[in-house]
Amino acid sequence: MFKELIIPEIKELLRKKDYKSIKEFITECHPSDIADLLESLTDGEAAILFLLLPKEQAGDTFSELETKKQEAILKQLTDQQIRELVLELEPDERTELFEELPGQITRKILQLLPPEDRRETLKILAYPEESVGRLITPEYIAVKPYWTVKEAMEYIRKNGKDAETIDIVYVVDDSGKLLDDIPIRRFILAHPDDKVESLMDGHYISISAYEDQEKAVQLVKQYNLIALPVTDSKGILLGIVTVDDIIDVMEEESTEDFRKIGGVGLSEEEDLVANVKEMSLKRLYRSRVPWLLVLLFMNIFSGGVISLFEGTIARYVVLVTFLPVIIATAGNAGSQSSTLMVRALAIGNVKLSDWAKLIGRELLISAALGLTAGIGIFFIGIARGGIKVSIVVLMTMIINVIIGSILGMSLPFLFTKLKKDPATASTPLITTMCDIIGTSIYFLIATNILF
Amino acid sequence: MFKELIIPEIKELLRKKDYKSIKEFITECHPSDIADLLESLTDGEAAILFLLLPKEQAGDTFSELETKKQEAILKQLTDQQIRELVLELEPDERTELFEELPGQITRKILQLLPPEDRRETLKILAYPEESVGRLITPEYIAVKPYWTVKEAMEYIRKNGKDAETIDIVYVVDDSGKLLDDIPIRRFILAHPDDKVESLMDGHYISISAYEDQEKAVQLVKQYNLIALPVTDSKGILLGIVTVDDIIDVMEEESTEDFRKIGGVGLSEEEDLVANVKEMSLKRLYRSRVPWLLVLLFMNIFSGGVISLFEGTIARYVVLVTFLPVIIATAGNAGSQSSTLMVRALAIGNVKLSDWAKLIGRELLISAALGLTAGIGIFFIGIARGGIKVSIVVLMTMIINVIIGSILGMSLPFLFTKLKKDPATASTPLITTMCDIIGTSIYFLIATNILF
Repeated sequence: MFKELIIPEIKELLRKKDYKSIKEFITECHPSDIADLLESLTDGEAAILFLLLPKEQAGDTFSELETKKQEAILKQLTDQQIRELVLELEPDERTELFEELPGQITRKILQLLPPEDRRETLKILAYPEESVGRLITPEYIAVKPYWTVKEAMEYIRKNGKDAETIDIVYVVDDSGKLLDDIPIRRFILAHPDDKVESLMDGHYISISAYEDQEKAVQLVKQYNLIALPVTDSKGILLGIVTVDDIIDVMEEESTEDFRKIGGVGLSEEEDLVANVKEMSLKRLYRSRVPWLLVLLFMNIFSGGVISLFEGTIARYVVLVTFLPVIIATAGNAGSQSSTLMVRALAIGNVKLSDWAKLIGRELLISAALGLTAGIGIFFIGIARGGIKVSIVVLMTMIINVIIGSILGMSLPFLFTKLKKDPATASTPLITTMCDIIGTSIYFLIATNILF
Repeated sequence: MFKELIIPEIKELLRKKDYKSIKEFITECHPSDIADLLESLTDGEAAILFLLLPKEQAGDTFSELETKKQEAILKQLTDQQIRELVLELEPDERTELFEELPGQITRKILQLLPPEDRRETLKILAYPEESVGRLITPEYIAVKPYWTVKEAMEYIRKNGKDAETIDIVYVVDDSGKLLDDIPIRRFILAHPDDKVESLMDGHYISISAYEDQEKAVQLVKQYNLIALPVTDSKGILLGIVTVDDIIDVMEEESTEDFRKIGGVGLSEEEDLVANVKEMSLKRLYRSRVPWLLVLLFMNIFSGGVISLFEGTIARYVVLVTFLPVIIATAGNAGSQSSTLMVRALAIGNVKLSDWAKLIGRELLISAALGLTAGIGIFFIGIARGGIKVSIVVLMTMIINVIIGSILGMSLPFLFTKLKKDPATASTPLITTMCDIIGTSIYFLIATNILF
């Protein structure tokens, strides 16, 4: 009766892709009613409805279903059509609509899938881009705490062939919750009749599927792991991330930072880490042109500043001959500072809170660098433009190198604070900012001292 | 008799550190005579003499020695005094004087040493900086091909506790030569009475201790290894390099490239990868000042170029207002190209031989970028300086962006060709070169079109 009334309406809402209304409606229903409903829909429709269920309900509903329907829905969840449908949505809309699937079901889906389909499916399971969830592989060994070592070894013998590693064996309870990780050597050294429980020490490092991949890299580095277990928000073991995937992530992130600091790629597109040799000319052009134009229009300001001082320049043309060396040196000092900081922030040597501590150091070093550079150019200043011009050049050089360095050092922190990648403080950006500021300071000092 | 005559002389040569004469002399002697000689010297003297022996003789001489003297020499080889003595020599002199020790002896020394002393000793064993030899750890499991699986498992059980990994078990012959690597799972799955030999497939990846660490990183990435066996030039297994060391190397090399491309650090000093926060101000100053001064003096050329055109500038002061944007855009395009190439060369996406193929692509892209930037500035040129000036600006912009890009793309290849790190083509270097060339082209075109 309930069913007869509701099914046509649900089908209509599905057709209209009005997922919000469906979600509102089914959240009110009892799991056994939902299970009933799912049985009456086509497998494709049932899969979408299932994805819309809140996490708690999804687990209960799944257990109410007949095994045949369970498998059908799992199969549908990995189907191309469902994928396309779900991927049509905006990422944040998707995250809002679809709940995290219960860990046990995620794991089952992962185990069903061939590796090449896995990444695509992890995308749909709404793990955000660059999250640990995207790296999960289900090829690990998990044993129960109440098994004997002999039983466990028997199980490893049978299932170890497909595991990515058997160096570490995971222990889970009956609901699949991660309890511990045990090095295989402890099994080999133990008595066959010992319980797995007796080998446990309760110390293990794990990570949530929603964490940033960067965090996984740090854990693997810090604890010298060869695999990192990944859990859902309830602590259910979903799979592991292996060290070879971690190596790939490290390389991708370094490449991304590298390109950003060189001013390539304004967006967070995936092709940031594509192979330069194989990228299409169009994509390469598009990855380079945005920054180039942004910087170009910033540079027009330098020109604007200069045009304010045309009178000064007309009287002292020699000032122009020092313009390149002054703005370039400030830009170079700034680039050095920003590269040092971007990398230090990326590998975790420096934290956001270190800024205040570091600025004092930067002031001292940049003053020393500015003085060195200033003296380097001072005597050429005397030779070409006389003592007054050379004093202008010396003063400008010191001030500009300090400002450039402080700017280069601080911008990566600012971008981090704004939740942007610190590498956005690219060397071209720093150089351009130094150009504008440096030109202004140069001609201001010159106009004041020379006239 | 032989001994009586020679010992005082050897002792004298040792005191004078005239290693060359000693080496010449002992190379002529029979191993049993040398063994005899070693027994009569103090342990310290004997150790140095031993280090001077050619590889073939060293092995034979070592077996001729009494066990007590053998141990004494090994102990001396790891002693602080010997270290200091050997480290006093220039690295190339050291490599020339001291032969590679026989692998069996290297391995024994490594096993005797606590981990903190290991790196220091690997330095003395004359493995060059950044070679795989510096990363060796002796904590692995090696079994013999004629053992049964049961014997091997017994051995693993006894010795596995201290191994870095037992996921991979190595097979060596009686001389210590590496024959194969076998995943532990193959042992677990095998029958206890099977011979180790029957589990071997003869496929394994190994690396020489003299290879570059970069090569080890590539092998580990390519074959998803968790440990890489390291052999001496005769194929003797010296130890393994584990994936956590590989991760450290990757990070160090990325950081080094990062700093270089930002123009920090002219030399190959080790502090290139030190923590910015903890580096002394003096070291930080010294790592930044060389490039800053090199670039400063390069930039003085730009000034020199400008001074050649003072006449042009005096008549068209407006030209100066476009100088920053023109040279900066060329520098930015060049920085983009060099960053892309430096990274592509570092991770092996691009090879030295790809240059010719890539230059065509770079020409097309940079022409498109130059045209985009040129049009972007063209109309401002009309507004500020009239049609003639804007044509000068447009033409200069296109030519400069092309030259900057080609330069930025090609320099990393040139440095690679010259056996220098491609990251030496830092963005400040490219920017500065673009400044000089760009300024010249700008005023040349201006002088020709405007007069």
